Amino acid sequence: MTIQETAAWLKDHDCYLILTHKRPDGDTIGSAAALCRGLRNMGKTAHICPGTGETHLFTPYLEGLLAPEDYQPDTVVSVDIAAKGLFTQAGQPCLERGIDLAIDHHPSQEFFAKETCLDAGRAACGEIVYEILKELGQITAEIALPLYVAVSTDCGCFQYGNTTADTHRVAAALMDTGLDIFPLNKRHFRTKTWARLQVERLITERMHRYEEGKIAVAPVSLSLLDEAGATEEDMEDIAAFLGQIEGVETSITIRELKEGGCKLSVRTSGGLNATQVCAILGGGGHAAAAGCTVNGTMEQAEQAILDAIKQVEGHA
Amino acid sequence: MTIQETAAWLKDHDCYLILTHKRPDGDTIGSAAALCRGLRNMGKTAHICPGTGETHLFTPYLEGLLAPEDYQPDTVVSVDIAAKGLFTQAGQPCLERGIDLAIDHHPSQEFFAKETCLDAGRAACGEIVYEILKELGQITAEIALPLYVAVSTDCGCFQYGNTTADTHRVAAALMDTGLDIFPLNKRHFRTKTWARLQVERLITERMHRYEEGKIAVAPVSLSLLDEAGATEEDMEDIAAFLGQIEGVETSITIRELKEGGCKLSVRTSGGLNATQVCAILGGGGHAAAAGCTVNGTMEQAEQAILDAIKQVEGHA
Repeated sequence: MTIQETAAWLKDHDCYLILTHKRPDGDTIGSAAALCRGLRNMGKTAHICPGTGETHLFTPYLEGLLAPEDYQPDTVVSVDIAAKGLFTQAGQPCLERGIDLAIDHHPSQEFFAKETCLDAGRAACGEIVYEILKELGQITAEIALPLYVAVSTDCGCFQYGNTTADTHRVAAALMDTGLDIFPLNKRHFRTKTWARLQVERLITERMHRYEEGKIAVAPVSLSLLDEAGATEEDMEDIAAFLGQIEGVETSITIRELKEGGCKLSVRTSGGLNATQVCAILGGGGHAAAAGCTVNGTMEQAEQAILDAIKQVEGHA
Repeated sequence: MTIQETAAWLKDHDCYLILTHKRPDGDTIGSAAALCRGLRNMGKTAHICPGTGETHLFTPYLEGLLAPEDYQPDTVVSVDIAAKGLFTQAGQPCLERGIDLAIDHHPSQEFFAKETCLDAGRAACGEIVYEILKELGQITAEIALPLYVAVSTDCGCFQYGNTTADTHRVAAALMDTGLDIFPLNKRHFRTKTWARLQVERLITERMHRYEEGKIAVAPVSLSLLDEAGATEEDMEDIAAFLGQIEGVETSITIRELKEGGCKLSVRTSGGLNATQVCAILGGGGHAAAAGCTVNGTMEQAEQAILDAIKQVEGHA
């Protein structure tokens, strides 16, 4: 459905339950919160499905919006969910019942819903929710806040390559409502936990560099996490940490697993294809970001991935 | 002068020399480069004054635009220069001759020029240059590039509090020319030198925390810089490094000086007034960012600034 069709469809329905994806990020939570508030402002009943594994960073945006336990929705809408496998545990009954509308921006959208509003050219699902709510005349400062969180977090505060002129135009329109973006930007882009800082210190101390610094490897052992006092939340996007170093073209993060073995994440910005490298070790992903699992010690995993890189470079 | 008046004025003059401020940043260099290209596209003769102490980050944007040694301009324009004291050594003769036009966004503009185009509500001088060049019909992709550098670097890639809806609107218009922002964002916002990373590691290792982590102090000794292999360029905005730590409200960077003594930089995000604190030690600045110099060792400087904070807090 187009933006206009989706807006009309939302007017025609009621008793909404909005679903976010598992391991939720700013885009799915912000899109859900904005849509929920917009629908309520239109006089509709609308709630967000709880139990999405909220993080302390995004949970505040859901305040007052979560569905009561006995809520029986008539209309189920998913936001920013590309595939059936990405529904939360709490969302499983809805998946069995059937999703009425999916609003999404992923090119990999599986079209699991009866109706779909998809624009794969958008940096964030929040941009699409913005266009729908604008069509419905619902862009207030209260709604602009979660939409700004959705849009800005999915494009790294306008730094990533997915940022378009439209992304900036949406941000401008949201700021026109009087929204104060500074505390949001400080919270989401300019704040590090103490534990995260220690993780970065320890990685800087212990990383290995090869090929004149073009390849950087960060061995992240369980004891490193212990020493830093870090939880999984502190490790968010740690694979990007090495990629920012001047001259690094291939960055590899090796995470030691509790159950034994290692999980590797490979990011490339030069000519090397990360998927080809990880495929040799049974993994996969995109050309610029891929992953794989290696049974063995961290040293063995490091040797295995370096060998895989040599093999791919040898064929190039 | 208004944007329209400035555009008309630029049409009426010729043989331009454009001046940037000393210790140049992305805004002054990007604004100068865009203005120079725009004037040349209009058939004017235009050059940028060389010898501004270019940095390796911004020098490439000046390529082909610097004035030949014997160039005699008819019209001198300064961009992003608020005060006479901020002219470069190479710009001094122009200052004596007289500046014809100043284009600027600083509230502290000293009105040293015959004509001034000032908009203190703009995050970057580049936004004003954009409006002028748009008026003149000169926004090409080639001009959008330095303008994007100017605008994005002065607002921390749309993260700082000076970012407005207009800032985003300018960014959108620049991207509409087909400009690829990703390599620019990677260069200016997502790249750290190896030495900078070592500086951050050593600061993390050696910082002191007080009042349950609300105050953080980074002692940056000359030996720390040696150990990290850092130059002044690697230390850019290092005072912001501590401020990003969760819970830190007051961050203090103490730089040991070659000539003896220490330079202190104080940043606050809580209720404390940084200028009041630094004034006690003979310094000054803004409420949220101030500085001072202390004669003595780094330990003495640290004690002095902690005492000054206590004194200000005691009076609050």
